[in-house]
Amino acid sequence: MPISVVGFDCDDTLWRNEDIFLKTRQWFGDVMTPYAPPHQASDLLNETEMRNLSYFGYGVKGFTLSMIETAIHLTQGQLPAEDIPKMIEAGRKMLDNPIELLPGVRNVIEHLQGDYRLIAITKGDLLDQEKKIEKSGLAEFFDGIEIVSEKDPLTYGQILKSHKIDVNEFMMVGNSPKSDILPVLELGGYATHVPYQTTWAHEAVDLSNVQNKKFCQIDSVECLPSLLGSLKP
Amino acid sequence: MPISVVGFDCDDTLWRNEDIFLKTRQWFGDVMTPYAPPHQASDLLNETEMRNLSYFGYGVKGFTLSMIETAIHLTQGQLPAEDIPKMIEAGRKMLDNPIELLPGVRNVIEHLQGDYRLIAITKGDLLDQEKKIEKSGLAEFFDGIEIVSEKDPLTYGQILKSHKIDVNEFMMVGNSPKSDILPVLELGGYATHVPYQTTWAHEAVDLSNVQNKKFCQIDSVECLPSLLGSLKP
Repeated sequence: MPISVVGFDCDDTLWRNEDIFLKTRQWFGDVMTPYAPPHQASDLLNETEMRNLSYFGYGVKGFTLSMIETAIHLTQGQLPAEDIPKMIEAGRKMLDNPIELLPGVRNVIEHLQGDYRLIAITKGDLLDQEKKIEKSGLAEFFDGIEIVSEKDPLTYGQILKSHKIDVNEFMMVGNSPKSDILPVLELGGYATHVPYQTTWAHEAVDLSNVQNKKFCQIDSVECLPSLLGSLKP
Repeated sequence: MPISVVGFDCDDTLWRNEDIFLKTRQWFGDVMTPYAPPHQASDLLNETEMRNLSYFGYGVKGFTLSMIETAIHLTQGQLPAEDIPKMIEAGRKMLDNPIELLPGVRNVIEHLQGDYRLIAITKGDLLDQEKKIEKSGLAEFFDGIEIVSEKDPLTYGQILKSHKIDVNEFMMVGNSPKSDILPVLELGGYATHVPYQTTWAHEAVDLSNVQNKKFCQIDSVECLPSLLGSLKP
């Protein structure tokens, strides 16, 4: 069965996203400098995020709450009160960040959309993801937009079912081994890894031992059309 | 065309929700007592929520961030630092709140599901709404679950389209005039208002002047089967 549907992760696959988290994490480290060395602030923030994940899920709002919680804990309540609104403002700024598409993305999406059904599959805060897709200018090229709270085999299975897609005709493209690659391979679909310059520690998984002929790796989304071409029967 | 699909709002239509917001608002007012009379704290919190809505959307996480921001503003930075983690904890508690179905809801949903396609249509934070639907024990009865960031005619139109529903065969049932009733009437569908004991000020709209024969009002979801029966051709 030839590939006829391509799922695209969005953040750090179609456009830059982790950069703004990194930048805010660095800013947070700077604000915490009087109380702790940057790596300690950063580690503690990561721990708080992981602990809060089952409550807050992925996205900027949960990150902002975790940032505030970490700051109070780290400073043992000595944090100047005016720093808290600055953290909420940092969250709003992240949500307001303009979308910068990765090189070649628009061309590739335009090029593929006549020949393939394209589905955007992204996780995070609902409103934020909707706005980013809107701001990207790519919404019109997608047959479906799926914003989910977790990308696991169950979620992918539901998406394939609701769009009446056979897993054998489906390829997922994304930067996160944990969210975009492994669950789709597990279901029996194709998965193409496009590494991003930075990947959030929580999403990083070593793919070097993956033995699956439906697993591909490309340096850039720009290589996707020729990869798809080479897989045609 | 007879009604064949019923959309259900969830919060305060199928289960209690506003109660936990009210309770947390009251608690917030109490914490603010040394700095401002309760109504002032409450008004300011509402204003902050409205101002943040376009960034944070609906839901507990945005509410929690607004609570923190209001508290710092209201106390002019004099808020004891230990009160902030208490607010984040209040947010987590809201997210952990058990689901209490409203009277008769389970019977009605079970009763209708053979004869009608049922769709849950709810707005708020993605993960939170998913968990509540899961905890409600009602997920299995719905043909579709739609979690949206805003309930306006555009959103309803997209939902109807994606489920291949003709608006003439669709009835929406919910407690919010603004979100569940007016946009559906505007599209030409049926809309049944089930008032809840309390409605968030932001959602309250006077329906007494609505002149539309597709608009109905019932005291409880328990009355829905007989209403639907009476509308059969």
